Amino acid sequence: MTITASPAWAAINAHRQAFANTHLRDLFAGDPKRVESLTLTFDDILYDFSKQRLTTETLGLLAALAREARVSDWTERMFAGERINISEGRSVLHAALRRSAGPFPNSQFDVMPDVIATRQRMAVFADRLRDGKCFGHKGMPIRDVVNIGIGGSDLGPKMMGQAMRSISHPVLGVHYVSNLDGAQMAPLLQTLDPRTTLFIVASKTFTTQETMFNANTARDWLRANLGDELVSENHFAAVSSKPERAVEFGVSRDLVFPIWDWVGGRYSLWSAVGLALMIAIGPHAFDEMLRGAERMDEHFRTAPFERNLPVVMALIGIWNTNFLGASTNAVLPYNESLKYFPSFLQQLEMESNGKSVSIGGEALDYSTCPIVWGELGNNGQHAFFQLLHQGGRIVPCDFVASVRSDYPLPKHQEALLSNCFAQSAALAFGRNEGEVRASLEKESLSPKEIADLLPHRIFAGNQPSSTLLMTSLNPGALGSLIALYEHKVFVQGAIWGINSFDQWGVELGKAVASLILPAVYDADLAKPLDASTQGLLTFTRKCIS
Amino acid sequence: MTITASPAWAAINAHRQAFANTHLRDLFAGDPKRVESLTLTFDDILYDFSKQRLTTETLGLLAALAREARVSDWTERMFAGERINISEGRSVLHAALRRSAGPFPNSQFDVMPDVIATRQRMAVFADRLRDGKCFGHKGMPIRDVVNIGIGGSDLGPKMMGQAMRSISHPVLGVHYVSNLDGAQMAPLLQTLDPRTTLFIVASKTFTTQETMFNANTARDWLRANLGDELVSENHFAAVSSKPERAVEFGVSRDLVFPIWDWVGGRYSLWSAVGLALMIAIGPHAFDEMLRGAERMDEHFRTAPFERNLPVVMALIGIWNTNFLGASTNAVLPYNESLKYFPSFLQQLEMESNGKSVSIGGEALDYSTCPIVWGELGNNGQHAFFQLLHQGGRIVPCDFVASVRSDYPLPKHQEALLSNCFAQSAALAFGRNEGEVRASLEKESLSPKEIADLLPHRIFAGNQPSSTLLMTSLNPGALGSLIALYEHKVFVQGAIWGINSFDQWGVELGKAVASLILPAVYDADLAKPLDASTQGLLTFTRKCIS
Repeated sequence: MTITASPAWAAINAHRQAFANTHLRDLFAGDPKRVESLTLTFDDILYDFSKQRLTTETLGLLAALAREARVSDWTERMFAGERINISEGRSVLHAALRRSAGPFPNSQFDVMPDVIATRQRMAVFADRLRDGKCFGHKGMPIRDVVNIGIGGSDLGPKMMGQAMRSISHPVLGVHYVSNLDGAQMAPLLQTLDPRTTLFIVASKTFTTQETMFNANTARDWLRANLGDELVSENHFAAVSSKPERAVEFGVSRDLVFPIWDWVGGRYSLWSAVGLALMIAIGPHAFDEMLRGAERMDEHFRTAPFERNLPVVMALIGIWNTNFLGASTNAVLPYNESLKYFPSFLQQLEMESNGKSVSIGGEALDYSTCPIVWGELGNNGQHAFFQLLHQGGRIVPCDFVASVRSDYPLPKHQEALLSNCFAQSAALAFGRNEGEVRASLEKESLSPKEIADLLPHRIFAGNQPSSTLLMTSLNPGALGSLIALYEHKVFVQGAIWGINSFDQWGVELGKAVASLILPAVYDADLAKPLDASTQGLLTFTRKCIS
Repeated sequence: MTITASPAWAAINAHRQAFANTHLRDLFAGDPKRVESLTLTFDDILYDFSKQRLTTETLGLLAALAREARVSDWTERMFAGERINISEGRSVLHAALRRSAGPFPNSQFDVMPDVIATRQRMAVFADRLRDGKCFGHKGMPIRDVVNIGIGGSDLGPKMMGQAMRSISHPVLGVHYVSNLDGAQMAPLLQTLDPRTTLFIVASKTFTTQETMFNANTARDWLRANLGDELVSENHFAAVSSKPERAVEFGVSRDLVFPIWDWVGGRYSLWSAVGLALMIAIGPHAFDEMLRGAERMDEHFRTAPFERNLPVVMALIGIWNTNFLGASTNAVLPYNESLKYFPSFLQQLEMESNGKSVSIGGEALDYSTCPIVWGELGNNGQHAFFQLLHQGGRIVPCDFVASVRSDYPLPKHQEALLSNCFAQSAALAFGRNEGEVRASLEKESLSPKEIADLLPHRIFAGNQPSSTLLMTSLNPGALGSLIALYEHKVFVQGAIWGINSFDQWGVELGKAVASLILPAVYDADLAKPLDASTQGLLTFTRKCIS
């Protein structure tokens, strides 16, 4: 039985019809305890979802849906190391990466010795590098680290590195290169000294096209600059589940850090994929981040659904997507240090749950993952918020902010927060005709002018949002935050009945690209390709030659 | 009569029903001339929209809709300087900003003398600065320029500055600050020398909250570092339609550059708002950019609808949004230098057309602007493309790339382009069951394994996209590109019957923020606010104190 045929689903549908478009104004007016009952706290995090278009009754019905979908069973199966990533035959054990101690998942199949040993090796290397005791060409200390990776081997550490830049090493430069486009790597190389630069090549298979192109270009650059004296062992580290390939490339065996098939790329920030991040912020802060995530894991496994942050966040998404018809979800950080957070979530959510086939292989007839998008909120106010306020589309928003600033300037932070709170309030409550009229009448306009302007200045409101407020962007809170979203995605996947841990949708493009590449150089090879690709290649060749 | 009640709309609806979900595979198979007839070129730009789910017949019907909506009349009214921005009583004349000569819009109301005079003043100042002849503290030449502005006073020049960074001044640093968050400005200030830094404060009203906060912080920083010897005239320029306010702030009168009420912020890149960009790339390249835009203006005014790039692009958007039911539009640049292009388009499109009230004030019962979102394409492949390929949602995509790279590395560009072309082909044509089976059978799997994997590896295809391929990111092509999207937005606004040039939706949030700000400091002032805002403020105060 698909989930949409369940009694739980039907009950929500019935509730939704009765509920209709009840306005957030009325929901607030009707329940003085609303904010209290629709707010959760966890350590340093406040999660206020009172401005979602739901009530505690809705939440109860949604929790029943989660029970119907056996979310707890799936959770325990994940934590028990079962191969819930069926299509790839793999366990899903990223939670191991943030555990303090083992055995885990159990004493028969215990991954913790490997995890802890790797964490310790990373810490030794990171400390040595941070202390200026890791040496490049002719014994000069390494001053710049370039992480070469893409997708999960880039977004996680890069996002967290930006989030924690205020505590990053004062001298070492840590950079990220992902794109195949030379326009990312070439200008960066111009700013680096090859004698004191270390590249970390992060690729599970050590065959990722973009990563290997960039790694080869890095090696060529080192060779061109350091000549025969290049000792590539001094300039490369690697993160891979294929250590032999890394060694063959020229990485010293003791600088190859393992990753395992039970870690998905988009869940790998906690592993050696986070090495560049650990180098930037230090092993101690990295460990605090792991502890924050571990606390969230524990909360997720033990808290009742209605008080369980990842579960509640997931259920709100299900409600907005499958019952209120939202097709997107905006993520709006009010903190410059979180500027890569929307991109990170795009991968986490859309690569995990952007699927339309069930874990068992049946085509689904209901919506799954929405489009996740967003920008820094304060900038967005002057860009696309017009549409959120008056565009007539339902766009659930996640506001994310920290109370304390890592870069305080007088008065800025208070003004920033008041903007953040004001936007969610304006989206929720709007401004109705009577209010607009009263306001226009104060502007000494003629009745005709008032009548003309009135409709343009009404705000329908009822745009749903949550606010996730942290005391500060400390490593622990950030660890909790990311684990929260990871588990949210897991719960949604379980309810939608999909495998959140494979990504077959990335395969076809790669296969087609390998057919097109030779045809860039040789027109004859373009002939079997579709007419549009042929046209694009003809234009390309004409322009290159 | 609303446009949805027109015969043209009905004809498209009928066509849409007959057309149903005809697959792009069949459309390509059925018409060998398809690519030729669904590709347009303009100077250095190729626009291939053959992978949109339409035919020349569809395009003809959509062009009839544009005629029904009197798009040509609206265009001529705009170019004639009529006050088509009715709700604000303003003309819409950003096209003037890129004209070579006047009179324009006509000899009675000719804005060109002001436009050309300002352009010349900008060029003189930019050249002086670029030549090291603009002096800061104690006659030291200015080395860094910081543009302080937000929204339209930030995104346009910043985006274009990144796009043309390969030709930017080799020594001068040009930076952009927009966010109220101190975490943007404070770390930047740490890298600057107050003696040799010039701030450009760009705000039409010179009252924009974020911009004035940052401008005041800049002045405080200069004072704290240069003390009584500060001569603020040496460190500030301004762009504003309120020159007196800028002078009062401390800007030298001859460094206040005007902007006029007939330029909307999101269309102002071509004006003095582009000063920081002109400083970066030089007046000559800036002028080439204007010429590219001017050529697009001319094309837009004169080309028949079916061969008119902005019109065709607009009609495709209408088709996807109003007839195929797409609610978003992904913008996917395959060029690192275009990384801010999606953010720029978010403002241009969503602030212009994210409205649900007609220009005459009636509530609309059809969809208008979709959510515009996107990321660099190559990175996106390893992040959210999973959803585009297998998520079951229709997501029209704009692929944007340049054939030549400004930062060529051996082989990278060809591989990048083949990825770009491959993704659009894979999205369009997919991989059907038979093809997947054939491919799986080569992998020596058991029949059960094949049966299990098969559904996960099917790609439905039929995901619509266009590819905009430029020979290179030269200033002229970039000018044409932006003007193309500007006019696309205009045409869509005309068809949807909305005013694309006001933005009342940004007002309410500002008003609410001004109520909340004092309550951050004083709990008593929070009492009249809604319960959620009160809760957020209580958490905030507890954490700050």
